[in-house]
Formats: sequence, C-alpha cells, structure tokens
Amino acid sequence: MRHILIIGAGRSTTSLIKYLLEKSSAENLFLTIGDISEEHAKKLTKGHPNAQGIYFDVFNAKQRAELIQKHDLIISMLPASMHIEAANDCLKFGKSMVTASYVSNEMQALDEEVKKRGLVFMNEIGVDPGIDHMSAMQVIDRIREKGGKMLLFESFTGGLIAPESDDNLWHYKFTWNPRNVVVAGQGGAAEFIQEGTYKYIPYHRLFRRTEFLDVEGFGRFEAYANRNSLKYRSIYGLDDILTLYRGTMRHVGFSKAWNMFVQLGMTDDSYTIPDSENLSYRAFINLFLPYSPTDSVELKLRHNLKIDQDDLMWGKLEELDIFNPNKTIGIKDATPAMALQKILMDKWTLKPEDKDMIVMYHKFGYELNGERKQIDSSMVLTGDDQTYTAMAKTVGLPVAIAALKILNKEITTPGVQIPISKEVYGPILEELEGYGIVFKEKFTKYLGYNPNNVAG
Amino acid sequence: MRHILIIGAGRSTTSLIKYLLEKSSAENLFLTIGDISEEHAKKLTKGHPNAQGIYFDVFNAKQRAELIQKHDLIISMLPASMHIEAANDCLKFGKSMVTASYVSNEMQALDEEVKKRGLVFMNEIGVDPGIDHMSAMQVIDRIREKGGKMLLFESFTGGLIAPESDDNLWHYKFTWNPRNVVVAGQGGAAEFIQEGTYKYIPYHRLFRRTEFLDVEGFGRFEAYANRNSLKYRSIYGLDDILTLYRGTMRHVGFSKAWNMFVQLGMTDDSYTIPDSENLSYRAFINLFLPYSPTDSVELKLRHNLKIDQDDLMWGKLEELDIFNPNKTIGIKDATPAMALQKILMDKWTLKPEDKDMIVMYHKFGYELNGERKQIDSSMVLTGDDQTYTAMAKTVGLPVAIAALKILNKEITTPGVQIPISKEVYGPILEELEGYGIVFKEKFTKYLGYNPNNVAG
Repeated sequence: MRHILIIGAGRSTTSLIKYLLEKSSAENLFLTIGDISEEHAKKLTKGHPNAQGIYFDVFNAKQRAELIQKHDLIISMLPASMHIEAANDCLKFGKSMVTASYVSNEMQALDEEVKKRGLVFMNEIGVDPGIDHMSAMQVIDRIREKGGKMLLFESFTGGLIAPESDDNLWHYKFTWNPRNVVVAGQGGAAEFIQEGTYKYIPYHRLFRRTEFLDVEGFGRFEAYANRNSLKYRSIYGLDDILTLYRGTMRHVGFSKAWNMFVQLGMTDDSYTIPDSENLSYRAFINLFLPYSPTDSVELKLRHNLKIDQDDLMWGKLEELDIFNPNKTIGIKDATPAMALQKILMDKWTLKPEDKDMIVMYHKFGYELNGERKQIDSSMVLTGDDQTYTAMAKTVGLPVAIAALKILNKEITTPGVQIPISKEVYGPILEELEGYGIVFKEKFTKYLGYNPNNVAG
Repeated sequence: MRHILIIGAGRSTTSLIKYLLEKSSAENLFLTIGDISEEHAKKLTKGHPNAQGIYFDVFNAKQRAELIQKHDLIISMLPASMHIEAANDCLKFGKSMVTASYVSNEMQALDEEVKKRGLVFMNEIGVDPGIDHMSAMQVIDRIREKGGKMLLFESFTGGLIAPESDDNLWHYKFTWNPRNVVVAGQGGAAEFIQEGTYKYIPYHRLFRRTEFLDVEGFGRFEAYANRNSLKYRSIYGLDDILTLYRGTMRHVGFSKAWNMFVQLGMTDDSYTIPDSENLSYRAFINLFLPYSPTDSVELKLRHNLKIDQDDLMWGKLEELDIFNPNKTIGIKDATPAMALQKILMDKWTLKPEDKDMIVMYHKFGYELNGERKQIDSSMVLTGDDQTYTAMAKTVGLPVAIAALKILNKEITTPGVQIPISKEVYGPILEELEGYGIVFKEKFTKYLGYNPNNVAG
C-alpha cells in the first residue's frame, strides 16, 4: 500500500480524490484526507475502504510532522500561503509534494535542498497555473522542434458559468473565490509586450482594453490583461518574443459593465466604510457620487458615468438591485470591495443545479521556413454538477495525475518544479483528454498585431 | 544673546532667516544656520554679524547633540522624516523646537515627555499645514464665541504661478517640489463629508470632481479633494459638522488636463520602465496606448481619451512637446511618474524673473440665532522674487514668528503642538498681516450643498 496525504479539502479536491480513489485498488493507494473540518474530510472519502478523513491543522507542528512522516507523498490543497509549513516537513522526511499554487519565494528557496534529496515538489499544476503551462509548452515545443521561431504568445483563461446555467445579464456567476473576482487586476499596472513594445494599462483602464476571442461552438468571449504577462517570459524561453500577453476571459459585455464599479471606486479594498453594517445598498452607491439635495442616486450615477438612457449596462445594475434602500450591507468595517461582494453574492451565487465552465485560449504566432503562421488552441470544459465542477476537474485532475506519476517514478526530475517539461506535460495532457480536457487547434496565417510588418 | 539653531536651509528658509536677522539686534538673537552644504548655509547669513553658517549633518549624533545643547531654541526645516533625530536631542537637553511639518507618530509619542519638561514643540506652522490651521481656527472660534454652530468647513490651498508670470497653457509651473505635484492624490481614495454623507473619490476620478472658487481680483480657481479631509475633524472640534472638505487649488482647466496623464497611467510611481534612459518622449506616451501598426501616437491618444479635434486640452499636450521622438527621458530605471516629471520640468520650471503665488480659501457655514450664514475667507500672496517667494514667506514667517514668541515666553503651553489655540494663532496672524498675509472675508447667506434642507 502507498499512502498519500491530501491536506486541505476545499471545493477543488473533489475530482482529485475521485481520481485517486478510482485508481486506489489497481495502484495500491490509501488516501488520508486531512482538513480543519474532520466531518468534511470524512464526507469526501465517501466511505471508500481505501481512504480515511481526519482532522488536520497545518499549524500543529507535531501532528503535521507525524503525518507527513507516515505518508509516501503529500498533496497540499491548502491556501497558497500555508504550503511552506508542509514543504519544510516534506523536505525533512524525504517526501515528494504536489500543489496547484504559484511557487512562492519561500518554496523556490527550497529548490537546492529538494534536488539534493532527489525529491519532486511539483507546483502550479492546477488549471491556471497548470493546464495553461502544459498546453502552451506542448505547442511551443512542437513549433521549436520543427525549427519555428515564436513571434507571439497570448494565453487566456476564464472560470465562467456554463451556457445552460447562464441566466443573468452579466453572464457571470461566482464559480470560484468571489473575493478574488472583486479585487482582480489590482495592485499595479498590467504589463505586457505587443510587437516588441512594452505596454502598460493602469487598473482603472484595465476593463476597457479588452480583446475578443471566438471559440467554436461557444461564440465570442472577451479578455482583459492579467497583471504580469511577462512572468513566464524567460521560463518559457520566450525572451525575444514580440508579443506576450496573458489575460482573463469573460462573456462579452462583462468588462465594460464591471468598469462602472472600478470607475466609482467600489472595488477598493484599502479602507473601511463607517457604519458599513447598517448601510443600505443605495447609500453604499451614494458614497461614490457627489452630494445633491435634489437629484436621485440613479441620475447621479448615469451622469457621473455618462450612461445613456438606452445603455444595456443599466439593466445590469438594476438586476443587482444596487439602488435598493432597504437591503443592508450587514458587514462590520467593510471595505468597498467587501460591500460590493456582498451585493454581487445575492445574485451571482450558483444555484444547486448550476454548472460552471472553464475556457482556455492560446494564440501562438511563429515564423517557419520564412512564413508567418498562427495556431489558435482552445479548450472548454463544463462541470458535471456542483461537486465535480469544471474548476474542480481542471484543478484537481492534473494534481492527481502528477501525484500518481511521481509516486510511480514516471515523473522523476528532482527540485521545485512547474509542469513545463515534456516529461511532465506529455503524459498528463494525454491522460486529461480522457476526462474531456481537450484542446482544439485552428491553423491560420499569422494574425498578430502587425502581420504585414508595417512601421507605425 | 539668545542662540537659535536653524537646521536644513532649503528654499523655504529665506524669509524665515530674513525675519530673524532683522529682529536680531533688538531681540538679541544669534542665528546658527546648519546645512549639509556649508557654502549654502554661509550664503544665507548674507554676512550678517548676528549669524553664522556651518556644515551640519543631522545623522552625525555627536555634532547634533553638541550644537543643540549650545542653543536656546531649534528650528528644523529638514525633510519631515528627519525631525525626530533633532527632537530627541531637544528633549534630552531641554530645548524647545519648531517645525513646519506634519506631526509624525514618532513626534506625537514625545508629547508627554515634552510636557513634563515644560517645552514647546511647535509643528505644522508653515503655510499648509500652518496658516490654514491658524486662519481657520480664528474664524471657527469667533463663530463659536458668538454661539454659532458650525455646519460646513471647506479649506483650499494652492501653490501657483503669479498672474504676471503665467505664460503657459496649463497656467502652472513648479513653485515647489515637482515630485509631490506629479504623485499628488495617490495612495488611496479621497475621503470627505458632504451634508452628513461620507464621500469617496478614487484617485483616477479625483481630477474630474473639482469645484470652482472665485477670488476677488484674481478670478476663478478650481480645487480637487485632498486625500484625507477628516484628519482635523476632531482636532478642530468639528465632530458633528455636516460638510468637511479640504482641497488643492489650481488655475481653471489644470485638473481636467492633468487627468489625461492620470487616465493613461503616466503618474504611476510603482514600477520602472525598461530602458527608460533611452526612451523618447513619444515612445514614453506610446507605452500607455494600444499597439497599432498604422495609427499615430497622436490619433491613438485622441481616440483613447476621446479628445475632440477642437479640445483645448490638446494644445496643452503639444506645448509640453510630449510627441517629440528625439527628446529622451534620460533617467535610468525611471518610473512613469519620474519620466513625466522630466517632461514637465522642461516647461514648468520657473524662469529667473518668475514669481509664485499662494492662494488660500476657506468656507465657513454656520447657524446663528436660527439663521444659516456663511463666511468665505481668502488670502493671496505673491512672491517678491525667486528668493523671497510666496512659498518661502508663508512657510518661513509663521515659523520665525512662533520661534521668537516661544523664546520670549509669549507662547508657553508645553507639549507637541499645532497652532490651533488662540494664544498661538492670534498674535501670529496679526503679525503676518504686516507681511501682506491678509485674509479677506465675504459674508453671505449659507451657500452649502443643501441650503434649503431638501431631502434628496
């Protein structure tokens, strides 16, 4: 029996656990699921004989060390900041580890020691980061193997509502951490490169510099820039690339409407509002509008944001019931972002029967044999239900597959890793196809921002 | 002979030194001017027998202690963050101290000790903060003495170019630290109260929510909100006031044009631009505009900011020569704010014969005997030349007067102080009138935001 310890049993662990349990007999696996809620951990085992659910507190050093020592591999699905506690013990007791989170500086600092001990600490192997790395590197490596030169790489991911559950004017529901959605894009200007020129978009313009993406069978989406598109420039080996852009996908019209909140300052998370607990939705909106003894909040908002009488954005605001003077925020010391999140959660919370959807879209521009070409590669996955969501599948399955492959010595390169080498992405992407995570490719001439090489 | 030590001899010390030297015979004063440039310190004495200029480094603890010990009173005109070094020694050796800076937390922490030793540490006694505190509290106290109840207090200050030197389309030149002008308003939403309602303006909207102020003989000005208007609410005793607003004054049209830079993200000081040293002005602007192989930077800017063909703002941009492809930023690792400052300094630097101007405007709304009234109080001071600027006079004179009054035991209340008590502001404001710093009052009915008490 090989023992796998899964710590942190949030929403994204369902498919991960299901995968490993399905393989548990054939692969001789026993899973220990540790969570701060023992009840929740037990529930996730579904009574399977090859699993147990236990109470686990990552900050209990004694329990943590004992458990990690007893297991063959550790999967941490804890919040990103908590991995390091487990990582230090994994290093100490010589256990490999898998996480779906960005490599923190502290995690990176362990690289040398991890290598010395011959361990694999695989990170960023969820959906974004994760499947995006793998699916992008697969195409980039293919282009390079043929002798092609990369000109453009753009990559977009969206966690969205599935078409069959899309029943509001925003075409959006919270399929993941609502807080992250409300503060998305904050913390500095978005940076990227277009045709060799650095470009910067300040937060307050981010949602007005979108681009459209057409996905066969699913229609048109839009995308706004992520904060740092250049983060993986060197890691992907794209130091000389002319265009490098990463973005977040939404249904068309979302960003323009969301921009209303950004413009008003309602996404600010840096200060608290006096007496926020008793503030009505209407009074909350009014905090961001000039005082008037006579004019309504509605008219002030329209005037302030120059929203025409027949602008479709207005319906989106009304749908959120933000002008309601009777509904209250009900949160003490709320920041504007927290208050806005409350208002949105009234309307954007998934219903029991709702399904989510993950959309990913890459563009690869390259030159091969003197010709400029482009590959567009896209993937759409819909969730089964509210347990096996598209998010849970796309985050959990690569984690589970990687964990098993590390255990089986199919992935062996030691160190603090992300899944960008063929050894890793090849077999994992192949196996993911069996779960419906399939990339479709479209081959065209180069459609980059300056296909004819005109000076501008 | 009473010995005064002045440490830090920047641009705002000229009038301060002149005042004290003029009084030095009658008042038996000897000034020691300490600066990191000995030559500059010596020059400021103008060979006066009652003054010496010396090299002074506030971080040289030995010299600092020796000097402070030998003097009767210390005036620190150092950058705000450096006062605390001197303050600790002043406390140790029992010397009173004067600064024109905001009271830092470290300075405030000395209050109890300063009181115990019977010393006066007078701060915020320049122009803003300083003359604004004094002139406001004088009127507020007067209204209260009559039994009036404060309804509204708004206070605006501007460091501007004098009309006779106003020769550019922005009607602005750098009469003070350019960097502070470029990053003004950043660091969080502006907060204030209008008619009992909290209001917040995010940075990216700050320069589009201005209000107009008419100053007799000088025409119309505009003002944008300072970050924290509520800072002095309790200190001024205005806890129940309906409207409290502090702002910065500019000539009309400045803010709307400045907003172009804010919108584009050119005032961001949080990241550096690759190869900024060799970047042309034109390429700098282009960083903030979408890529196009065919369209000009000019058209992209017009389209991006929706600037009509005949908009007067365009001339302001052209005047700054920002589209020039041959002028380079010339600063290594420049942030956008630093690059913008460089471009502005080409055009907004004072010429030798230019004069500056300080404008201050207060509005006091109050209820007295059942009647709602308002007092508007304004002050305009023009500089004599580039040595005795309006800034140097309005910052330095209150500092000098306060210093002498502390020395002469006319200001005696011990502790870490700001000039809001009658003991302080009364005689100082009276003396300032002799130097042309005169507030003119206009009495009207209450013109606040809701004079007729209409529910809105």
